[in-house]
Amino acid sequence: MTQSKKIRAGLVGVTGYTGMELARLLARHPHIQLAAATSRTEAGRRLGDLYPFLRRLPGEDVVLIEPDADKIAEACDVAFLAVPHGTAAKTAAALLEKGIKVIDLSADFRIHDAETYANWYAEHPCPKYLPEAIYGLPERYSRQIKSARLVANPGCYPTSVILGLTAALKCDIIETDGIIIDSKSGTTGAGRKAAVPSLFCEVSDSFRAYGLGGKHRHTPEIEQELRIVAKKPMTVSFNPHLVPMNRGILSTIYAKLKGPLSTSDACAMFEGYWSACPTPWVRILPPGELPETRNVRGSMFCDIAVVTDPRTERIAIVSAIDNVCRGASGQAVANANLMFGLPVTEGLMDAPMLP
Amino acid sequence: MTQSKKIRAGLVGVTGYTGMELARLLARHPHIQLAAATSRTEAGRRLGDLYPFLRRLPGEDVVLIEPDADKIAEACDVAFLAVPHGTAAKTAAALLEKGIKVIDLSADFRIHDAETYANWYAEHPCPKYLPEAIYGLPERYSRQIKSARLVANPGCYPTSVILGLTAALKCDIIETDGIIIDSKSGTTGAGRKAAVPSLFCEVSDSFRAYGLGGKHRHTPEIEQELRIVAKKPMTVSFNPHLVPMNRGILSTIYAKLKGPLSTSDACAMFEGYWSACPTPWVRILPPGELPETRNVRGSMFCDIAVVTDPRTERIAIVSAIDNVCRGASGQAVANANLMFGLPVTEGLMDAPMLP
Amino acid sequence: MTQSKKIRAGLVGVTGYTGMELARLLARHPHIQLAAATSRTEAGRRLGDLYPFLRRLPGEDVVLIEPDADKIAEACDVAFLAVPHGTAAKTAAALLEKGIKVIDLSADFRIHDAETYANWYAEHPCPKYLPEAIYGLPERYSRQIKSARLVANPGCYPTSVILGLTAALKCDIIETDGIIIDSKSGTTGAGRKAAVPSLFCEVSDSFRAYGLGGKHRHTPEIEQELRIVAKKPMTVSFNPHLVPMNRGILSTIYAKLKGPLSTSDACAMFEGYWSACPTPWVRILPPGELPETRNVRGSMFCDIAVVTDPRTERIAIVSAIDNVCRGASGQAVANANLMFGLPVTEGLMDAPMLP
Amino acid sequence: MTQSKKIRAGLVGVTGYTGMELARLLARHPHIQLAAATSRTEAGRRLGDLYPFLRRLPGEDVVLIEPDADKIAEACDVAFLAVPHGTAAKTAAALLEKGIKVIDLSADFRIHDAETYANWYAEHPCPKYLPEAIYGLPERYSRQIKSARLVANPGCYPTSVILGLTAALKCDIIETDGIIIDSKSGTTGAGRKAAVPSLFCEVSDSFRAYGLGGKHRHTPEIEQELRIVAKKPMTVSFNPHLVPMNRGILSTIYAKLKGPLSTSDACAMFEGYWSACPTPWVRILPPGELPETRNVRGSMFCDIAVVTDPRTERIAIVSAIDNVCRGASGQAVANANLMFGLPVTEGLMDAPMLP
Repeated sequence: MTQSKKIRAGLVGVTGYTGMELARLLARHPHIQLAAATSRTEAGRRLGDLYPFLRRLPGEDVVLIEPDADKIAEACDVAFLAVPHGTAAKTAAALLEKGIKVIDLSADFRIHDAETYANWYAEHPCPKYLPEAIYGLPERYSRQIKSARLVANPGCYPTSVILGLTAALKCDIIETDGIIIDSKSGTTGAGRKAAVPSLFCEVSDSFRAYGLGGKHRHTPEIEQELRIVAKKPMTVSFNPHLVPMNRGILSTIYAKLKGPLSTSDACAMFEGYWSACPTPWVRILPPGELPETRNVRGSMFCDIAVVTDPRTERIAIVSAIDNVCRGASGQAVANANLMFGLPVTEGLMDAPMLP
Repeated sequence: MTQSKKIRAGLVGVTGYTGMELARLLARHPHIQLAAATSRTEAGRRLGDLYPFLRRLPGEDVVLIEPDADKIAEACDVAFLAVPHGTAAKTAAALLEKGIKVIDLSADFRIHDAETYANWYAEHPCPKYLPEAIYGLPERYSRQIKSARLVANPGCYPTSVILGLTAALKCDIIETDGIIIDSKSGTTGAGRKAAVPSLFCEVSDSFRAYGLGGKHRHTPEIEQELRIVAKKPMTVSFNPHLVPMNRGILSTIYAKLKGPLSTSDACAMFEGYWSACPTPWVRILPPGELPETRNVRGSMFCDIAVVTDPRTERIAIVSAIDNVCRGASGQAVANANLMFGLPVTEGLMDAPMLP
Repeated sequence: MTQSKKIRAGLVGVTGYTGMELARLLARHPHIQLAAATSRTEAGRRLGDLYPFLRRLPGEDVVLIEPDADKIAEACDVAFLAVPHGTAAKTAAALLEKGIKVIDLSADFRIHDAETYANWYAEHPCPKYLPEAIYGLPERYSRQIKSARLVANPGCYPTSVILGLTAALKCDIIETDGIIIDSKSGTTGAGRKAAVPSLFCEVSDSFRAYGLGGKHRHTPEIEQELRIVAKKPMTVSFNPHLVPMNRGILSTIYAKLKGPLSTSDACAMFEGYWSACPTPWVRILPPGELPETRNVRGSMFCDIAVVTDPRTERIAIVSAIDNVCRGASGQAVANANLMFGLPVTEGLMDAPMLP
Repeated sequence: MTQSKKIRAGLVGVTGYTGMELARLLARHPHIQLAAATSRTEAGRRLGDLYPFLRRLPGEDVVLIEPDADKIAEACDVAFLAVPHGTAAKTAAALLEKGIKVIDLSADFRIHDAETYANWYAEHPCPKYLPEAIYGLPERYSRQIKSARLVANPGCYPTSVILGLTAALKCDIIETDGIIIDSKSGTTGAGRKAAVPSLFCEVSDSFRAYGLGGKHRHTPEIEQELRIVAKKPMTVSFNPHLVPMNRGILSTIYAKLKGPLSTSDACAMFEGYWSACPTPWVRILPPGELPETRNVRGSMFCDIAVVTDPRTERIAIVSAIDNVCRGASGQAVANANLMFGLPVTEGLMDAPMLP
């Protein structure tokens, strides 16, 4: 495949961490190239000047433009939207109408139900595209993604939680009520906006909870997808925390077992369920091992451990991903791979980087 | 009170983080001075040479000696034991027999029941002192501590959890079964031993769980004290995690509400319960605020927030302490204050240090 | 001394790290209390609500007011100015005219020469007070500070550099030209303003230089004070760097030796020089030891090591301070102590906190 | 090129950070595969069990063996030695005698002169191979590396310093005496040995110097290579520091200018010199920009900035690399590429990963 035949990708909203990560991943992708990128604040600059890490690499010469659907549609086959919700839906509509495929990294098309979206976010700016949007979790929807023209890229927390709980629900070993999710995220999850609470000296050497009590907007997304897995309504307690690290989400998920189950049997059931997975990225750890976020850093892997506790008749599922790669930009590239007939793993099988 | 009349404290086991913290706290204590310190590996050195931070401060001139009960008893009125369990009990017995008071920072005298101790640790080396040991949580046992000659200083995780749950149990607003405790600790909790998993490059920029599934030895200590509070048997799910920070424990505790309760009513109940507390250190945050470990760094404060979630009929209690000060050495000094008739807060009311 | 007789301090500009640190230090000061505090953005709030770490501690009940010279002068005996340069000079003038003492933490009165100030900052807004301003480095000017009504609190970098170089210049062992200063600062040095380059994810796990080539505004301040020490003009190369840590400055200073000198002789000369110091805070490390910023964290200590290198006929002086305490707020409190006839160490002799 | 025709690499000493990084880099190399790996302590384990990050990736199935020259030579075309100096030389000799190529990551063959080696390390265990060893800095010796059978992989600090100084020396703009190098390294540079000074809580939130005064063993290596560049004897002052971060070295290098030179002219001279470089990895930053270690994280890039200071007639050169990739394992892979006729960049052009 020659350079000129590469799939041309546009990046709408380049200044955040998901934009940086997309630039990183596309710089080493064999078949997708960054062809255009937009930024209201940085228009006119070369991407390699905005992001010095990118110099001498593919993409450095892309000159940032103001967001403009016509220009993007002309230059690109597919657009990644890394802009806030609300704005994303309107941009998606404009681009879809011009015939290019869209992968939206915002929340706008993740919630199938416009009323639920309105309850948690705002009136949906563009509900007519909701029915055709596919939830871009390749382990669950790879078939539908292949033929989609609009993919809703999953949220970071939901990715870790849904992958963590799917096998337990499918194997019918846990009660569906009373599930408690205690998630811990690196600080990239707070975005790249100038804000005092995200300053180094406010985050470093400290730990805190936020959005407890069912208030975080990822709750309805998690519940929607778990409901589809479990084939019944699900209400979960989702509780996020902030870790003084750059990347990574680790979710510890607690559920009541339906009956006695050893840790090794639970591991075997998880292994069995995931053996049929269309991606190689879900890694069930052997009994006795527990995930560390560094083991998935920069990658698409989701490391999952299971521990059962006979004292409390509960199971703890620990699920670790890289929130920036797996939880956002890498997953977006995986979706692009599927939408253009490439192997889902194309450009996404580098080893995690540690330390 | 003149210098010569200060209470003389001995520190058995000086090379760990709890030993460092005791040296720090005693260096500014108006009525207790460090009079002796032991270390097998560092005997003969001045404490100020071992710990350069201590130079020009009280305690720097203490010359480390080999552990020796006679010498400690001769030089001291009270001994702080910062040595491993097993060793601690034997040392405590030797010192008690020589008539000096003992505050044991190990687990040896925390568990009242020798059989439970044996199940989680090893055969108890010195069970005869178990009946008189007082669990050194000043908010719960200040009266008994005042007359004790042997205090079992609480574990770091148990301190955060017991303080977090006491009001909820006393006010009878939660179910006593199904309690889930998701605790996160700074890396001082792993001790100061040379070990690869505690290296900077193994911990930094990563997050992990450990000891899930009811395996951590702090579980029986937590259950013992909650049982005393609730006046009924308690089985909890305790799950520790490691945070890339130096100090701090934040425990997020999930329980089923007995009935509908608003967050502000729950806060008010917690405030009401703790208003009668014999220490000023439990701070109930106003509704809407959540603790950060940095807000208690270096101090005895325990910051507690409560959030109820009507969707799941659950309560989340978040409790933050400094594991080294409140969870170990500071609490030991508070116990010494009580044992010698000083105000519990003596030398322990400095503001937390942040950032 | 009863509560009502405490010296009343005002804090102009409370929202930055120096303001937080002043609140921390005054909360445990036996003779100075925080009596008023100003903030344009937070006026009306209690200090304990702005800074949750301060709850239950002296100062928490101070209600923030808009900056107003009359109100401050009425409520206070002394004002600490933690506002930007330019604003600080005007505020100082207004307060001095109302008869209260001023300790200015900005750069406005550090540079004696208005023209030099203009070259590096801007036209001086209030040159008439320059002649009486005393440079508030207690090791150098304690006598003058005692009778001053306006003290210019030294910059953080200059404090570390001047203390590091004074003995070498006084003992006349180094050439005065060709001095190179390579300083490394924690991120509190960048202030508490919302700015992308200070975000956790921009600073963490990285290291960078800034302001190389004689551009940093602390350069003329360093040169002024070294000139006074050396009694001859000094031009130095000052080069700051940013460390992914909260607090601390470590300056490595390189100079040409006038003649052969062993490390231990150099240490002895430094020890000798500083033995007459009016404060206990300069600690010369024994030969072979090197400073670590954590050993001075939260304190007024300046740890200094000296190493001579016969291969290059150079000396390396390493000087470590806490930039927030020694380099700003703690030094301001020391100056207040002197201005009100208290021992310079009052409230400032707590042990450094590590880890 | 089919899988069976890949170049087979052996990794002697797999448990350190350089071993981990080689495993990471080879897992994504198109033409070199990990065929054998040794570890005294971990023999018998699968590499994927030792390094969970490597699961599902090439190399995970390699079973660790005890070091054995016969077995390595049988299984491999080339061996990377990641063992301590002394051991490395003996292993190299054994492997060379069996006809396989060797890339030694230790210091054993970096110093051409056995007497100098003896002065800084120990009696050389195998001097007969010194004459044929090539110093593996591809920017300087790519032609010789191509035909070498023994490559001495450069030290991490020397890589940053030599690349930083080469253009300045070649363009003859600086004095060769009086050069001062102030280097700052991430903590991976301290290795993966269990040692208290490398614990998270000893390194985190602190900064320190070590090995000042011409004592660090990288000094003679730096001087040897600079002498070759400058064609005259060189004595430099090299001063390392430890940064609380995982990866990265930033060296700030100070030298006296031979004459007046603007920053932009200096940049242009550096750009001109490096335009003929056989690799794309030296990136001269535009005037006004300064390197950050994160911009080279995980990559082979060396970012260099130049600033001249007319006040002091000096130049500051700032050079940033990833010490683990560029300063060790990545450079080793580049050398392997050259030795086997591959492009030097093969498998080494991924974008740096940040944050």
